[in-house]
Amino acid sequence: MSSTLGTLFKVSTYGESHGKAVGAIVDGCPANIMLSEDDIQPQLTRRRPGQSDMTTPRDEADRVTILSGVENGKTLGTPIGLMVNNRDQRPGDYQEMDNVPRPSHADFTYQMKYGNRAASGGGRSSARETIGRVAAGAIAEKILAERFGTRITAWVSSVGNIDARDMSLEALTREQIDSSIIRCPDEAAAAKMIELVTATRDRKDSVGGVLTCVAENIPIGLGEPIFDKFEAKLAQAMLSIPATKGFEIGSGFAGARMFGSQHNDPFEMKADGRLGTTTNHSGGVQGGISNGEPIVFRVAFKPPATIGLAQETSTFEGESSVLEAKGRHDPCVVPRAVPIVETMTALVLLDFVLRQSYRNV
Amino acid sequence: MSSTLGTLFKVSTYGESHGKAVGAIVDGCPANIMLSEDDIQPQLTRRRPGQSDMTTPRDEADRVTILSGVENGKTLGTPIGLMVNNRDQRPGDYQEMDNVPRPSHADFTYQMKYGNRAASGGGRSSARETIGRVAAGAIAEKILAERFGTRITAWVSSVGNIDARDMSLEALTREQIDSSIIRCPDEAAAAKMIELVTATRDRKDSVGGVLTCVAENIPIGLGEPIFDKFEAKLAQAMLSIPATKGFEIGSGFAGARMFGSQHNDPFEMKADGRLGTTTNHSGGVQGGISNGEPIVFRVAFKPPATIGLAQETSTFEGESSVLEAKGRHDPCVVPRAVPIVETMTALVLLDFVLRQSYRNV
Amino acid sequence: MSSTLGTLFKVSTYGESHGKAVGAIVDGCPANIMLSEDDIQPQLTRRRPGQSDMTTPRDEADRVTILSGVENGKTLGTPIGLMVNNRDQRPGDYQEMDNVPRPSHADFTYQMKYGNRAASGGGRSSARETIGRVAAGAIAEKILAERFGTRITAWVSSVGNIDARDMSLEALTREQIDSSIIRCPDEAAAAKMIELVTATRDRKDSVGGVLTCVAENIPIGLGEPIFDKFEAKLAQAMLSIPATKGFEIGSGFAGARMFGSQHNDPFEMKADGRLGTTTNHSGGVQGGISNGEPIVFRVAFKPPATIGLAQETSTFEGESSVLEAKGRHDPCVVPRAVPIVETMTALVLLDFVLRQSYRNV
Amino acid sequence: MSSTLGTLFKVSTYGESHGKAVGAIVDGCPANIMLSEDDIQPQLTRRRPGQSDMTTPRDEADRVTILSGVENGKTLGTPIGLMVNNRDQRPGDYQEMDNVPRPSHADFTYQMKYGNRAASGGGRSSARETIGRVAAGAIAEKILAERFGTRITAWVSSVGNIDARDMSLEALTREQIDSSIIRCPDEAAAAKMIELVTATRDRKDSVGGVLTCVAENIPIGLGEPIFDKFEAKLAQAMLSIPATKGFEIGSGFAGARMFGSQHNDPFEMKADGRLGTTTNHSGGVQGGISNGEPIVFRVAFKPPATIGLAQETSTFEGESSVLEAKGRHDPCVVPRAVPIVETMTALVLLDFVLRQSYRNV
Repeated sequence: MSSTLGTLFKVSTYGESHGKAVGAIVDGCPANIMLSEDDIQPQLTRRRPGQSDMTTPRDEADRVTILSGVENGKTLGTPIGLMVNNRDQRPGDYQEMDNVPRPSHADFTYQMKYGNRAASGGGRSSARETIGRVAAGAIAEKILAERFGTRITAWVSSVGNIDARDMSLEALTREQIDSSIIRCPDEAAAAKMIELVTATRDRKDSVGGVLTCVAENIPIGLGEPIFDKFEAKLAQAMLSIPATKGFEIGSGFAGARMFGSQHNDPFEMKADGRLGTTTNHSGGVQGGISNGEPIVFRVAFKPPATIGLAQETSTFEGESSVLEAKGRHDPCVVPRAVPIVETMTALVLLDFVLRQSYRNV
Repeated sequence: MSSTLGTLFKVSTYGESHGKAVGAIVDGCPANIMLSEDDIQPQLTRRRPGQSDMTTPRDEADRVTILSGVENGKTLGTPIGLMVNNRDQRPGDYQEMDNVPRPSHADFTYQMKYGNRAASGGGRSSARETIGRVAAGAIAEKILAERFGTRITAWVSSVGNIDARDMSLEALTREQIDSSIIRCPDEAAAAKMIELVTATRDRKDSVGGVLTCVAENIPIGLGEPIFDKFEAKLAQAMLSIPATKGFEIGSGFAGARMFGSQHNDPFEMKADGRLGTTTNHSGGVQGGISNGEPIVFRVAFKPPATIGLAQETSTFEGESSVLEAKGRHDPCVVPRAVPIVETMTALVLLDFVLRQSYRNV
Repeated sequence: MSSTLGTLFKVSTYGESHGKAVGAIVDGCPANIMLSEDDIQPQLTRRRPGQSDMTTPRDEADRVTILSGVENGKTLGTPIGLMVNNRDQRPGDYQEMDNVPRPSHADFTYQMKYGNRAASGGGRSSARETIGRVAAGAIAEKILAERFGTRITAWVSSVGNIDARDMSLEALTREQIDSSIIRCPDEAAAAKMIELVTATRDRKDSVGGVLTCVAENIPIGLGEPIFDKFEAKLAQAMLSIPATKGFEIGSGFAGARMFGSQHNDPFEMKADGRLGTTTNHSGGVQGGISNGEPIVFRVAFKPPATIGLAQETSTFEGESSVLEAKGRHDPCVVPRAVPIVETMTALVLLDFVLRQSYRNV
Repeated sequence: MSSTLGTLFKVSTYGESHGKAVGAIVDGCPANIMLSEDDIQPQLTRRRPGQSDMTTPRDEADRVTILSGVENGKTLGTPIGLMVNNRDQRPGDYQEMDNVPRPSHADFTYQMKYGNRAASGGGRSSARETIGRVAAGAIAEKILAERFGTRITAWVSSVGNIDARDMSLEALTREQIDSSIIRCPDEAAAAKMIELVTATRDRKDSVGGVLTCVAENIPIGLGEPIFDKFEAKLAQAMLSIPATKGFEIGSGFAGARMFGSQHNDPFEMKADGRLGTTTNHSGGVQGGISNGEPIVFRVAFKPPATIGLAQETSTFEGESSVLEAKGRHDPCVVPRAVPIVETMTALVLLDFVLRQSYRNV
């Protein structure tokens, strides 16, 4: 297990899908930040299941409690304990899967690694684990917004074969994004995506998708060469989200098809007196360090592994078996992944801010 | 700076492109492994510049010396000091770039982060930094091969718009791959790639590419949920290599276009008595843990930033300037990146092996 | 803040003295250990206040709840969330100290470091913080006892100027030690210690003391040179307990007065076929690594800083002031420190066990 | 192995006593510090053997080379590679000890832990390992002196049963201390100590001693609760030095004999406008955080284990044997430990400075 992220702003999460609670401890939060549950709840609410037809009907209020680290509405500089009780536990749904590891799910690998696995749901591999991250990341978002005006905005840029147009240069708001239940701000594409997810759900299948994320108002100089380059830690953070299969920053895989003379981002003096670049194929980083341009990246999510459709597979013992998953499952995780990607970005960013600040000694 | 990678098999690199030496310390290497410079040199030699027309003509022998940690041909279990002297220093080549940060290079961001930068070459952001990693990773490769028969093989699967056919199911050897100077085992594609790189170099431009890497004979159960998932640490390792812009594992971004019923990898009993999968869209990992199937991933490299072509850009002070880089530069980094990707994979793998082994207590 | 201890068996504590809860997350606990609250509660109960006249009358049941990481009575290998609610909160007791930092307490330094401090009690510097450690350490004790038969026994060996006789070679039990409320198994000395603490309490003063701890049945080979030597990490763990001022292992400061020919521990073959030593001035470690002999060490605790006696001191602003602390305070912390020292020892030991085990790869 | 110390100012040492070189990498050193070998050499020279009759006659110049991280006399902010070649290798001296582990030396425990040990000398457990620390710590000392005027001064306060008078309130200089070959600034005691060490050496025995160290001009607020309290990390650092058996800060073990009303350090406004304390039983720390008063601590060193006197002991196989160590050994390590204790203190201090500075974000 390695349930801790961060060097100075350290987040340690805990909790299984069907235990008593999930949550996190945040160690290293600066003191004297105004903070209450109200600062944290909105992103948890955006993440929670049961918001629309696009998501699992599992119903959890996901109300966060701050156990420690805050007094009189201000952070003390001590560890912030965050807890969300689990409420809607239906372990019965999962019993029939006890002897048949779900294809492409963590049942098999957890069993092999730990010699056991949670008797119901995904246990620790469940998406419920991300609650602790989102709660912690909401704190990071608040600090970044107050100190630097940082805005972090993710949206669904593709579902299956339906692609939204490139909106990474538009100043999107969370309100715009949330105005569609699929969280795609390209209305035409959104309609088709909703149609696709609905049809997919109806035939008990699932479908993948891609999120695009833009972070603006980023201090120059963040990122720690060599192994903790900005893009390296961001990639780790994104690939630590369940169901992710790929990460690319700036030009990404398309950049590998370009010539240097096309790809290089020339410098120019910006109106605000900052030396910036005229293009942003770099996605806001050069040599592993932020250059002040927006951070732009994409994350690929596979289709959820748990589907109701019959699958020919095998028991743990190697006997052929057909699995039809019961229970409540997301047909497509990308809308609910939006606040997860945003808050994980904030965790990476704030940790770099704190790591950079000591250089002023 | 964060020049250390790994939790138990820890590698700390040091050295600038034009200083006295580059190298690494490996802390946590198991004791009693037979080891000499001869085990390390081959991958360093594959990495070194000046091997062919495809690479920079900078000529370095890159001979490694073991300073500590080995006695009578065996590891002591103590830190292994690794050193490679820098020989061919030509700082003069870089003087004219002193006041003009190279577009898409680390000149600007290092200057902003550190308030200085190496007076010549890329300093710490130079590809020479990877020597320490390759030397350390060669040790990891040896241990993995001896203990598990692990084979790690990377090759060039695209350069610019030229794609090799998918060879990830073929048991490729390093000899096959090295038989082409572009390190692409698809001969037809290789010929076109070489032509493209040659033409690109001749017009003083550069071009990007993609590496594919397959690691076989992987113990089941490697990878540490939550934040140190197998794919998360692999992504961090790959995005820490200079010039990388993307990482995908298994189905990757293409997987985001699929349905669950297509994407899921059903289980079946294998001939060797291991429960395996009939397909490998997962790329060898599920829930962040290796499942015993081959690890398959791809890494996107942008075109090198330093090009001889004239570029309109700006000085540090914001005045328009035209830059034509002198010096010796790779027109395409992917052939030399092959041993870097392989050895970085070995570093990630062996660290996971050591982290998993303690569960047997 | 650095509220995490351990490399592989990682404990992160949270909680202030007068917040909602205190507790810990344990990450890295091996899977498939039988575990329930009943395994943890006894050491918490030994640590809790209000046990006798020797301790603060603050009354807390200190019942622990396991929030995660255990299912069907077995550890999952996932983070174990541990929580103890705070019950008896009387912030009013502390108001008069708001402007006068208690001499030798953390009021002043927390204020200077964090720009704030908990409005009541010691906040994070309170002894209540140790609840999370004791709960986590009780898990470590259980694993060590089951795997190796390890016994860890601490007792009060001095209070003020009253010294117990050296009992470090006697096989003391916790029952023996707890049979005296001062937790000193030398009955004659215990009686005098109790008398001294009672008199000290009655005149609103406090007094210091020393604990001796012996850990038996220790695997050979634990401890990680160079910086994580066995005695180095043990010293860190002990000096991280509130009110500690000194640590010595084996011969300790007395050993500095000896000659090598007296101090050296000669080897001999033991009855059980283990190469051991005839004396144990080393205290069970040589070169930072356990040698199989009992670990023997002592920890010095200063007199508690919060006393009812009038003290001439100064306000934060530098004005002379007389402070008479109200509230409920321990006149002597050493009896309650016994389970803290024992469980902290277990945390250090088990982490070393896990760190050593990987060498078998 | 755990050869790395520090969270932000990270030092990783390498090297055995009889290999090619010893040294360290310093990662996290701030950029733009003026630095050359001349800043580092003095403390290495104070540490080197062969300085006087008090130390081993092994003769090493111990000249340090900076391999990386410095350009044009300034730090780059990148890892600083430090190397000292081993010169005077006489492995033959040790051959007869091959089958007889030296009593109270690391021969036995290294063999048991690693399944091997360096064929000659102490290998990694040798005092030569401290060269890397001293070199790195000399850099830390320079930064602390320039930024805060910090002065760190250690001296020999006892050898065997000979105690110097308490000089911890006197502003001692390194010149004063070095004016005696035993490095005790109490001239009367120094003479007796030299006599004792000479007599001890002549009869092929060894003797222990105690160092006292005072660090002045310390910023308020250093130290990271909970587990990285100032005194906890200092204790770890000191107990990581070979041959140490005890650590105490401020009142230390004597403080455990006091009453709170005696021990508490009352506050008062100092002439320089800082709120300080009238006494310093706390030794400069409260609640694990520096309070601005001098840091005062003592470290106990056992007598060196390798002695020429005949010792009755056992072979690895358990057969009785008599060992008379050949080779060149220190009869008393404390004079040479002075620069080690000072530089280790600097490493702990500077790391805390960097860890605290980020709170200003």
